[in-house]
Amino acid sequence: MTDHFNSSNYTDLEKIFHPKSVAIVGVPSGSGQATMASGFLNSLLELKFQEIHSLYPVNPKMDEVEGLKCYKNLLEIDGEIDHVISMVPARVVPQLVEECVEKKVNSVHFYTAGFSETGDPEMVKKEKELITKLNDAGIRAIGPNCMGLYVPSERIGFMNGFPPESGNVFLLSQSGANAGDVVHGLAKRGVRFSKAVSFGNGADIKAHHLLNYAAQDSETEVVAAYMEGVQEGRDFFQALKKCAAVKPTVILKGGIHAAGARAANSHTGSLAGSIQIFEAACRQAGAMRAETMDDLHDLIITLTTNAKSIKDTGVALVSGGGGYAVLSSDAIATAGLDVPQMPAETVEQLREFIPVAGTSVNNPIDTNLSDKDLQIKMLEIVANSSVTNVVFTNAQFNSPRKNKEQETNSDKTESVRNESLDSANTIASLQNQTSVPFVAIQRNRSFGELAGIANDTFANQAYRNGIAVYPTVSRAARSLGLILNWRNRRKGLPEIF
Amino acid sequence: MTDHFNSSNYTDLEKIFHPKSVAIVGVPSGSGQATMASGFLNSLLELKFQEIHSLYPVNPKMDEVEGLKCYKNLLEIDGEIDHVISMVPARVVPQLVEECVEKKVNSVHFYTAGFSETGDPEMVKKEKELITKLNDAGIRAIGPNCMGLYVPSERIGFMNGFPPESGNVFLLSQSGANAGDVVHGLAKRGVRFSKAVSFGNGADIKAHHLLNYAAQDSETEVVAAYMEGVQEGRDFFQALKKCAAVKPTVILKGGIHAAGARAANSHTGSLAGSIQIFEAACRQAGAMRAETMDDLHDLIITLTTNAKSIKDTGVALVSGGGGYAVLSSDAIATAGLDVPQMPAETVEQLREFIPVAGTSVNNPIDTNLSDKDLQIKMLEIVANSSVTNVVFTNAQFNSPRKNKEQETNSDKTESVRNESLDSANTIASLQNQTSVPFVAIQRNRSFGELAGIANDTFANQAYRNGIAVYPTVSRAARSLGLILNWRNRRKGLPEIF
Repeated sequence: MTDHFNSSNYTDLEKIFHPKSVAIVGVPSGSGQATMASGFLNSLLELKFQEIHSLYPVNPKMDEVEGLKCYKNLLEIDGEIDHVISMVPARVVPQLVEECVEKKVNSVHFYTAGFSETGDPEMVKKEKELITKLNDAGIRAIGPNCMGLYVPSERIGFMNGFPPESGNVFLLSQSGANAGDVVHGLAKRGVRFSKAVSFGNGADIKAHHLLNYAAQDSETEVVAAYMEGVQEGRDFFQALKKCAAVKPTVILKGGIHAAGARAANSHTGSLAGSIQIFEAACRQAGAMRAETMDDLHDLIITLTTNAKSIKDTGVALVSGGGGYAVLSSDAIATAGLDVPQMPAETVEQLREFIPVAGTSVNNPIDTNLSDKDLQIKMLEIVANSSVTNVVFTNAQFNSPRKNKEQETNSDKTESVRNESLDSANTIASLQNQTSVPFVAIQRNRSFGELAGIANDTFANQAYRNGIAVYPTVSRAARSLGLILNWRNRRKGLPEIF
Repeated sequence: MTDHFNSSNYTDLEKIFHPKSVAIVGVPSGSGQATMASGFLNSLLELKFQEIHSLYPVNPKMDEVEGLKCYKNLLEIDGEIDHVISMVPARVVPQLVEECVEKKVNSVHFYTAGFSETGDPEMVKKEKELITKLNDAGIRAIGPNCMGLYVPSERIGFMNGFPPESGNVFLLSQSGANAGDVVHGLAKRGVRFSKAVSFGNGADIKAHHLLNYAAQDSETEVVAAYMEGVQEGRDFFQALKKCAAVKPTVILKGGIHAAGARAANSHTGSLAGSIQIFEAACRQAGAMRAETMDDLHDLIITLTTNAKSIKDTGVALVSGGGGYAVLSSDAIATAGLDVPQMPAETVEQLREFIPVAGTSVNNPIDTNLSDKDLQIKMLEIVANSSVTNVVFTNAQFNSPRKNKEQETNSDKTESVRNESLDSANTIASLQNQTSVPFVAIQRNRSFGELAGIANDTFANQAYRNGIAVYPTVSRAARSLGLILNWRNRRKGLPEIF
């Protein structure tokens, strides 16, 4: 790799993220078998890339694929090609690189594996040579051994089910599968992405280039990263610092134990390095370290909702069921937050309309209210209490429908959808009125299609309204605890929000 | 409470668990509103109690409910009444107790709350008086402030959706909601129960009575408990020791932090006590402590499948996706297990049919095999490797269906069901052949009804075949780690399995 790109990385990436034409070389025949490999063409078609840009499948063995003309090679294509996705085997890559240079493409993404990550010195050398050849011709490369680009605004993606809408989260990942987990998992919870990049071995485009880009990208407000090893440590640290100074930046590091490090080495050829040093670098840079994939997901939810503005550790826990309240209180305490006793005046206000038997209003708040207006009143009082910094509440209001038995299936679906939207909107109004963050816990106690519709509808509408939704109390508490710690540590650095 | 029951607790409980007639006093009108309170009648009807036994709803305001004759009071009922479920308010309980004594019932379960758990000395005294009155008449009581009995063989239960089939797990719980979570959550994963008892304040029947019973109960092989506080510590410890000596016994303790302890006190009036003392008691008795509800669920899965027989920490991790393998390896190491490198001979055997590029066979095993026979061959080789003590594998085999596009919806459902059954059976044969425990990880990456059917079908069939299924690698590893620790600690005690 040569150095003359360093100054132009931002503009290079800007161009890579906005290809007007894509060639997929080595595209498999459309056998209907949903594998990772068949995902590129499917994903671009699903996002309708071909409706606004030019899409060129390349495979000498086919004339047509999925209704598109299939080309024998790059040179057979008349128009310009901005971005090439390489699905050919490693042994065919030298030939493809020749074609890319001749065709003057802008960038190549190598899905192709079998290079430096094998540990074979011959292949390490080969990878270097090919990248140098491309770079010398002004061509940038992503990978090898990765899934490449997801840019919703340009309708390019790498797995089915990626949302067509753009958002404010930038993701960089050394693993394609983990990038897919982040996008799929968070999309289901309402999150949308500005760009996501799976960059694998990082032979040319590396983590620090992407962090620098994310820091400057006006579409990006929050940055998430999955890393296995750090290349060029000094550059990485500088970029991390630059990015974390202006945008909340969360990093999940894989390979923290010997077994994981060995797996990372054979996955992306990464030398995992010491987790202590990595942790220290994150702290110094003002970034957050996620310890697990769940942490990463939840922190992104927290950072892109009003939950991020939590001021202190006081949780008002509004829950159903005494034993559930006990375990939830334990989980909150384990995460370093607190369930403080409600002051006398709050208790008094609540006792005006909540009977004593079988209920508790001291916090946890355990009522059997079935009237929605009274539930709202209760939540308002609890949020306004002096000890409350955040309200934990169930996702759905109990509002029993009349004539439930007479409903048809489509009535039921419609009712469930409306109830979920209404619950999400009600919690959002409470948050706006009280200026205290509300978070919703989506207990998954009932099953079946209707429960799924209810959960998804609620989660997405709540998120759109700035409400964080978590699957369990302990994950909610852990995520908020991590945010509080991070904000404490950042004292001295400029405020991000 | 008087002492003369102590010797006859087992026979008393045996009688309580086998009521031939049940009266539900204060049964609510069937408004169609699914609350906890309406659950008793619904649950008994759902389990078809009335088809083999006598069911008497009692409510002076109704003549009929759910097609059954409704009585004004207990005395109006002609036949004998074995078991009474009290749903009346606390102030009506003295009158009900009079009727119970006059009617010579065998047992009363007080769903009714508002007694000792309120902390009001007047109500503490009242609770004691009422229990004494019942006991003096030879009547045993469960509760107050609880959900009572689930005995599938007698078709008695306390929430909808409890399985009608009996099983080998005994559950005792101070919390009704948590008992419901255990039964619902584990039933979905295939577990069945001998009996479950939510006993709330434990004014008469206490944890130690139930543990003593469970130790002797021939239907019970594994015991699960949710506790908030311990009453009569010496009796409890003796019973725990007796039970844990003969059957694996897992206890989840609520109220381990100050916030949780306060919640426990207002929930069941329990004084939570020190978690260190509780932990020490568990260790000494040879019982297992679950730290969270997830732990409790997973340990019951582990203890009722072949996973319990794991001999050492070596995990063969068969997974899809390099980044997923890295994070999984980290999670396994965090739980105290290991992902040991495969010996040269195993690697050699695998490399005979697994190509090098984009795969790894060193452990984690990351192949792109799509042929089912080759996948089975790979799993067999991996299981037979000298370093393998357990195989972690994905829940489903990749076996792409032909003509998938032409299938109707009911074809699809049928195909998905058959594939899931086949996957579960295949993994079970591998376990039987190799004598190495296989556990399946059910990654929930796809959504929708079909995915739900696939997951449920697989989980239940796998469990029936003695395969443990967990939702994540980290939960699987944690549960197995806890079992290994527990078995190590038990050295010296008689072997349970």
